[in-house]
Amino acid sequence: MKILKVLGTFALAAVLAISANAAEKKVKWKLAMTWGQTLSPFTDAVHGMADMVNKMSGGDFVITIDAANKHKAPFGVFDMVKLGQYDMAHSASYYWKGKDINTLPFTTMPFGMTAPEQYAWFYYGGGMELMQEAYAPHGILAFPGGNTGNQMGGWFRKEINSLEDLKGLKMRIPGFAGEVLAKLGLTVTNIAPGELYTSLERGTIDALEWVGPGMDIKMGFHKVAPYYYTGWHEPATELQFMVNQKNFDKLSDRNKEILRVAMRTAAYDMYIQNYHMSGDAWATMATEYPNIKIKTFPKEVMDAMKKANEDLLSDYAKDKPLLKKVLDSQKAYMLKSRVWTQMSDYLYLKDNL
Amino acid sequence: MKILKVLGTFALAAVLAISANAAEKKVKWKLAMTWGQTLSPFTDAVHGMADMVNKMSGGDFVITIDAANKHKAPFGVFDMVKLGQYDMAHSASYYWKGKDINTLPFTTMPFGMTAPEQYAWFYYGGGMELMQEAYAPHGILAFPGGNTGNQMGGWFRKEINSLEDLKGLKMRIPGFAGEVLAKLGLTVTNIAPGELYTSLERGTIDALEWVGPGMDIKMGFHKVAPYYYTGWHEPATELQFMVNQKNFDKLSDRNKEILRVAMRTAAYDMYIQNYHMSGDAWATMATEYPNIKIKTFPKEVMDAMKKANEDLLSDYAKDKPLLKKVLDSQKAYMLKSRVWTQMSDYLYLKDNL
Repeated sequence: MKILKVLGTFALAAVLAISANAAEKKVKWKLAMTWGQTLSPFTDAVHGMADMVNKMSGGDFVITIDAANKHKAPFGVFDMVKLGQYDMAHSASYYWKGKDINTLPFTTMPFGMTAPEQYAWFYYGGGMELMQEAYAPHGILAFPGGNTGNQMGGWFRKEINSLEDLKGLKMRIPGFAGEVLAKLGLTVTNIAPGELYTSLERGTIDALEWVGPGMDIKMGFHKVAPYYYTGWHEPATELQFMVNQKNFDKLSDRNKEILRVAMRTAAYDMYIQNYHMSGDAWATMATEYPNIKIKTFPKEVMDAMKKANEDLLSDYAKDKPLLKKVLDSQKAYMLKSRVWTQMSDYLYLKDNL
Repeated sequence: MKILKVLGTFALAAVLAISANAAEKKVKWKLAMTWGQTLSPFTDAVHGMADMVNKMSGGDFVITIDAANKHKAPFGVFDMVKLGQYDMAHSASYYWKGKDINTLPFTTMPFGMTAPEQYAWFYYGGGMELMQEAYAPHGILAFPGGNTGNQMGGWFRKEINSLEDLKGLKMRIPGFAGEVLAKLGLTVTNIAPGELYTSLERGTIDALEWVGPGMDIKMGFHKVAPYYYTGWHEPATELQFMVNQKNFDKLSDRNKEILRVAMRTAAYDMYIQNYHMSGDAWATMATEYPNIKIKTFPKEVMDAMKKANEDLLSDYAKDKPLLKKVLDSQKAYMLKSRVWTQMSDYLYLKDNL
């Protein structure tokens, strides 16, 4: 009897301990996106990641997702993660150049690496370590969050045959690429996405860049600006998952790995999904609007953009040792891996277009 | 007292149930590789996958890995998985063309898709469903298992300037590509990896193909055959994880997802790792052996290979409806996505080499 009593007490304690452990194990996280509710494939990457985390943890680690219309601060997500108001966010590193210039190079750089080159730099060429160094002062861990692949140079109402044709042109193109084009004499502006089509149709702007066929098709730009220029400014735009370091440290080893692997897969998947969407959308556009013309900028324009880009970068990097270290690392890696890209995919494609 | 007794019994039962459940939850799987102990990056992909599964399951799902020197049957892994002697394997689908021709196209095809095009076909263009259809009769589930990227066309002791130069040449090149070259008058042979270097050095063979710089460098071929031809026959070689369907069905939903995601990440990672290794190894080779020459086959050779390839494929596909369905699906997908590849990466690279 006594034995049973003791056993009973022990067993009861064990049961209580187990259920306490189970309750403690449940992790509920909140993620803020820079994007609205549905912006495929960006939002698919986020939902895909949260889904994998949920399933792989057997429901013990749940991430709820707030779109910009909920938290009202698309570009406030950096600070919200830094302050721990959200456990994590999905956005793009180059949006924070005004807050901390060292975060600029981790999305993409004009005339920079292609997607496989850049993933190789991140995962095997020291890029991840440099990204952590840039985000550490903010108590944030950053991870690749999905690549758009090569972005198109934009939709133009008129053909560009010379540098002269660009002068005075009004173009919507944000960020660093906008600064490069401003150096070439364009008037660079930013316009809310909902007003872009009308602005282009009415000639309020002469040109704009968005992403690529997969995401551009819904915007309808091809109906009003027939010259579609190939890309130079965002050869492999990688989005980022940003994670509050303190909250990450509190996760069990198992949940850390689940989160790491889910983010990594979701990022790669987005690259592949956007590749698919772009091929598909372009086939539709080209069939329905046979007057769209694919153009590359003339050599004198390309050379001027390259020079403006180099000048701007060395201005930026002046007295900024970490930024310089990152840019130098990217350049050295690109030079080495580009030789392989040329030997492999480029020369293969040259004979198989 | 009575209450405690009942509670004790209940609690005891609960404890027993919980530990039984924990014991039951432990899953131990065995994987057979076609490869030896270390063949980077192939074996890294397998170990990476097993590591992720282990960590993400908190040690509840453990996969032990047997290399070919253990199970003694590099090309027996298909049957071992089919019969359930191993739960899963890591190999390449095109090795099974003699067993079931329908499995041929899921690794790579001459003049076929590049890596991002092929991943897009697998995951968003119907490829996965077709691969399951091909493997279903064998009770096997197949998943992408890592991509080498574009493989080089091989090392040649002499330069190839015409179709005539190829006639009578003795070359080590296995599989489908070997059949294509046999049609062009080459003597095609297979030689064990350990004897390849000596065979090439002594002129027993005039040429051979292996993979690409990252894996070729350790073999030393560049020291004895200076002409390194670009690829045509394996533009995106995807390895496969093969899983016994019945054993997979017995996994919990959580473990199914853990396995699926770990395989998917490991596959993408291998593509990126080999990209890195290739860029790195080529830089080393080119510095140490400046006499190595990168060559593409002349147009008349390329055209003859394309024709031989088409002829062989239509021979193979005759009266084989599933094979025909897969080849047609790949061709249609490639035509659509290649236009995007050209607009994006190809035209970008053209101006940035």
